[in-house]
Amino acid sequence: MKIERILGMFAIVVSIAMGSSLVEKVKGSGLKAIPSSNYELLQLIDDPKDPITDAKVELGKKLYFDPRLSRSNLISCNTCHNLALGGVDGVSAAVGHKWTANPHHLNSPTVYNSVFFDAQFWDGRSAHLADQAQGPVQAGPEMASPKALVEKRINSIPEYVNEFKVAYGDHVKVDFERITSTIALFEKTLVTPSRFDLFLNGNENALSKEEKKGLNTFIDKGCASCHNGIALGGTLQPFEVAAKYKFSEIGDFKGNKDGMVKTPTLRNITQTAPYFHNGAIWSLPDAIKEMGSVQLGIKISDNEAKEILTFFKALEGKKPVIVYPELPKSSETTPKPTFN
Amino acid sequence: MKIERILGMFAIVVSIAMGSSLVEKVKGSGLKAIPSSNYELLQLIDDPKDPITDAKVELGKKLYFDPRLSRSNLISCNTCHNLALGGVDGVSAAVGHKWTANPHHLNSPTVYNSVFFDAQFWDGRSAHLADQAQGPVQAGPEMASPKALVEKRINSIPEYVNEFKVAYGDHVKVDFERITSTIALFEKTLVTPSRFDLFLNGNENALSKEEKKGLNTFIDKGCASCHNGIALGGTLQPFEVAAKYKFSEIGDFKGNKDGMVKTPTLRNITQTAPYFHNGAIWSLPDAIKEMGSVQLGIKISDNEAKEILTFFKALEGKKPVIVYPELPKSSETTPKPTFN
Repeated sequence: MKIERILGMFAIVVSIAMGSSLVEKVKGSGLKAIPSSNYELLQLIDDPKDPITDAKVELGKKLYFDPRLSRSNLISCNTCHNLALGGVDGVSAAVGHKWTANPHHLNSPTVYNSVFFDAQFWDGRSAHLADQAQGPVQAGPEMASPKALVEKRINSIPEYVNEFKVAYGDHVKVDFERITSTIALFEKTLVTPSRFDLFLNGNENALSKEEKKGLNTFIDKGCASCHNGIALGGTLQPFEVAAKYKFSEIGDFKGNKDGMVKTPTLRNITQTAPYFHNGAIWSLPDAIKEMGSVQLGIKISDNEAKEILTFFKALEGKKPVIVYPELPKSSETTPKPTFN
Repeated sequence: MKIERILGMFAIVVSIAMGSSLVEKVKGSGLKAIPSSNYELLQLIDDPKDPITDAKVELGKKLYFDPRLSRSNLISCNTCHNLALGGVDGVSAAVGHKWTANPHHLNSPTVYNSVFFDAQFWDGRSAHLADQAQGPVQAGPEMASPKALVEKRINSIPEYVNEFKVAYGDHVKVDFERITSTIALFEKTLVTPSRFDLFLNGNENALSKEEKKGLNTFIDKGCASCHNGIALGGTLQPFEVAAKYKFSEIGDFKGNKDGMVKTPTLRNITQTAPYFHNGAIWSLPDAIKEMGSVQLGIKISDNEAKEILTFFKALEGKKPVIVYPELPKSSETTPKPTFN
């Protein structure tokens, strides 16, 4: 064997080891990839008691976009969790029925990748999406629809009833729980694989040198202690660990009764300003630095924030293609909208 | 020539004549089909000074769905002209910025097939869609965005600026007029051919016997005197010709300064309740009968209204497939939403 060839092999081995070391470091920090195969992904998100099917997802999509789920006929799930805008509304605090701002000045979290969260809502009070979906539909400052109104509206629309039968069988009861769990089934499919996943799944060239550096800084600074798992977030973590937020006067949220907050996902974070539970900060570098002082008790420099931001761009994911639905028409018995 | 053969030919001629007679009657009443070829359609709707291209239409679609064109970041063109709901909002009077109802209690007309209208708005004050699109974006009770705000928002989003360059060339000025005329170019493509068009374009079996009967009643009653052209509407006609509306206390619209109103299109009318300039009537048969007394000075019976309704179902058109857009992200210089 010639020396060149041996050196060549050595170079390859070193290169793999250097690349692998970051992958191992990332995995060791609790960060996980979205599985690259649909089969593995389904293993993670599917519930055998209510399996994902095309008919349910298509119906759930219609319901997600249907403003007739709101009392006024004007607000849909997509109003605050806009799939065209990274799954958010681009305002600090959600605005709902009668132009009411969220009473706790809470920011609408993204729906993309929310299937990977341990808990839903900022205080983590819902264990899963089907439970979460029931909240905003009924909440007075959001869609303001009592369960009975939602049930009456949907059951008054023959095409909807038929689609529920196709999805769940002829004996399906189209009640509030079924309507909202169908929305959740659609939401489960809103998964956005990114170059970060390609990297973790074995393609070391999927990230640039600068992005790898940013990822390294992200871990070294301790960000991954809260932002981990597939969502790089979505778990309950202590609120204001090291210091108070600078803007703590905006809104009254201080975590749940145990002082915990659901960490936002960092996937598509470059697309989901403004940031934090109260949407108080619009600049992502500022948000990164604020997290350093509030949660980690450290100073993150301008340069380090920039490096981390560079990594975040690799978390911009490929959104599922969504054909905008044609919603079934109301009938003469469909309850009319009201605005009070 | 054998007698059978002559009789056979005679039978064919008679059959064509009988089918043709309704087609001729329809055409004689001023009703027109959407052309069956894209070439002919383009001849009708395209403007050589600002021709329709894929790049413009795709950009216009994004702007149409983008709530950042509104002062609050919450209201898009699609909020009131919802493409999932037949191009309307399903409420009597439009609701906009700060939950403000339209001050004249005017109902949002459908955007589908609006390219075929002679004039836009209920009072016909706009000659074309590019002019129309400028109104609601700026109007205080609708999207409430001054021109300068819209221009600043769009120009602060690098991906949008780039898309304008791709669509119009590097020297494009991304001003309010360009932004709204691009929306109008997308709207021009919202054409929904129906079975009625197949029928007028030569397929006599495209309408059922009952639908043909309804079409015949529609013409005999005089409906086509206002609801004609390709849109079966969209022209200015006298308001309250024969009698006052029963609900005239709802809203203050009485036609434009010449006492004229833009007739709504009847395409997809089964999907666009509630009806009339003030959305006062939710039942389509009731609306048909009210038109008889208010505009034609005749009584339309329950049975005749039912026949006409049967014909209206043949006007439900095939909507263009719309992939829901992924909107370009805001930058740190994008003007923030305001809610006052």
